[in-house]
Amino acid sequence: MMRICFDRVYQTLAGILVQEGFETGRAEACARLFAETTRDGVYTHGINRFPRFVATLRNGSVDAAAEPRRVAGMGGLERWDGCKGPGNLNAQACMARAMHLARTHGVGCVALGNTNHWMRGGTYGWQAAEAGFLGICWTNTMPNLPAWGGVEPVIGNNPLVMAVPRAAGPVVLDMAMSQFSYGALESYRKRGEMLPVDGGFDAAGRLTRDPGAIEESWRPLPVGYWKGSGLSVVLDMMATMLALGRATHQISGDPVFESGLSQVFMALHREGLGPEEEGERIADGIVEWLHRAKPAEPGSRVRYPGERTLVIRAENEKLGLPVEEAVWETILGLRTA
Amino acid sequence: MMRICFDRVYQTLAGILVQEGFETGRAEACARLFAETTRDGVYTHGINRFPRFVATLRNGSVDAAAEPRRVAGMGGLERWDGCKGPGNLNAQACMARAMHLARTHGVGCVALGNTNHWMRGGTYGWQAAEAGFLGICWTNTMPNLPAWGGVEPVIGNNPLVMAVPRAAGPVVLDMAMSQFSYGALESYRKRGEMLPVDGGFDAAGRLTRDPGAIEESWRPLPVGYWKGSGLSVVLDMMATMLALGRATHQISGDPVFESGLSQVFMALHREGLGPEEEGERIADGIVEWLHRAKPAEPGSRVRYPGERTLVIRAENEKLGLPVEEAVWETILGLRTA
Repeated sequence: MMRICFDRVYQTLAGILVQEGFETGRAEACARLFAETTRDGVYTHGINRFPRFVATLRNGSVDAAAEPRRVAGMGGLERWDGCKGPGNLNAQACMARAMHLARTHGVGCVALGNTNHWMRGGTYGWQAAEAGFLGICWTNTMPNLPAWGGVEPVIGNNPLVMAVPRAAGPVVLDMAMSQFSYGALESYRKRGEMLPVDGGFDAAGRLTRDPGAIEESWRPLPVGYWKGSGLSVVLDMMATMLALGRATHQISGDPVFESGLSQVFMALHREGLGPEEEGERIADGIVEWLHRAKPAEPGSRVRYPGERTLVIRAENEKLGLPVEEAVWETILGLRTA
Repeated sequence: MMRICFDRVYQTLAGILVQEGFETGRAEACARLFAETTRDGVYTHGINRFPRFVATLRNGSVDAAAEPRRVAGMGGLERWDGCKGPGNLNAQACMARAMHLARTHGVGCVALGNTNHWMRGGTYGWQAAEAGFLGICWTNTMPNLPAWGGVEPVIGNNPLVMAVPRAAGPVVLDMAMSQFSYGALESYRKRGEMLPVDGGFDAAGRLTRDPGAIEESWRPLPVGYWKGSGLSVVLDMMATMLALGRATHQISGDPVFESGLSQVFMALHREGLGPEEEGERIADGIVEWLHRAKPAEPGSRVRYPGERTLVIRAENEKLGLPVEEAVWETILGLRTA
């Protein structure tokens, strides 16, 4: 593991994106989102995901030059076409649009079809919360999770993001509908560890904590068994019906061809509801209550969603972004000039 | 178990509500919601819950005559005060208001504070979907679930409802954030059965399928462990900040004094987005895909959320509502005249 300063990572990635057809300003914006994701500790969806993102540019799944466009709408609800553009830039534009709509209508909602993987979903929750909005967004994905009662991956892990603004640090939930991602299963297996709780079924259909057995069966568990399975179905259905886009079952199951996703971005503007300070006090009161709760492990404490982000961010800004040497070499190898 | 026809149940409950101070039309509307909940197979929150509801009327937690009123708002986003009125009538009124706002603004959102237990959350999802809207709503509750990393009940099970209209039958998810309710644990224990999956911790802090051990430890599991715990926190925070109402930690932990809840009701109106038939085809396509999935148990099939409701409803309409004799006697005993 090496540490590289934020600016060097960001400029290296931006340079590669320009080479791959991005206009300079968009290359910088896109590269910044990748670097910020690693900076915030979501290592699976930052720098580590960049080589796969370049592969999707090269195979035509993602159109570097495409920008989202408004197709239809009424009041605070709009439908946009992502035109197969870069998923993170499309998502950022649509959350910005939802906030714009919320300034006029109190609540804004943008349904985005024909887009691509948004990388770290929490990015758009932070975006809303840092601008003072409550944000809710979700995406569908390729089929990567068996539905409850089934054995093959027919539903998506469809991450759901909910974000609350707060002066002392936003509260941001970023939650996929699988209990463990394939990336997490791989990490546990490589460390020779069992999962802390059941994570899926083995080949014989028994619940197991063995990460390797789940990688072999392709049967990870939905969050809460039947409950997360149902939530995944409804999130897919809502996003697809509003965007008039593709459902999970219509999306390629090959990660480098996972394209044409459907997403929803909502922003709520508190201004018309009452004094914002009162909302702040409410959020702080909930956080204090959680911190006072009796912990299961002495010396630990209950945390709110996203609590560790600002700590990790500060550390990575000070020390540089942690990058595996092999990943960094792969990225440098993407440069053609 | 006896069967009583819908109208007799409904009229009996309505009569008791008039006796408890409801105006006749509101007594009928409230009684109808209880009877419909049992009719749709959600037995925990229908007739079985009625005696506790009457207790909350008698102890002053619920004000029979109170109606919700609009406090503030901008565009499609409004804040209402439930004035401690009956939770199911308040919730029905606020989902109706969210739909009204959505007709003008595309999306409508009503935050409701100072209300009471809404009984079956799915009711308001069905309400939205049957009127052609996509509906999302949630409520906070009293502290009844330990947060992940803690041992005492400090968060609510905060049910989340998401509903999609569909000609062949709406898709309605109604999901509390606990893996098993205390009612479900009691049912398993009385039948002498173990839970199908881990449902909580025993007194020694070990995960267990033994329902009695979880009832004793008061440590049921959140859905998806840390994930459902985080979702519960964010749902509470959003509802409370929008409603400027009470958070879970400010609500009495005694079920008959659980009052002053905060809720959110959202409706999305598809009319401005494109042809509704296309949305129908999308929903039907997802349902067909799930039904074609290879089942874990031969002869079974993967179901969508709410799939069994219309079947159960038809059966209970034909045969009468199933009611335990002891519960019915308790209800008849509530009549004072």
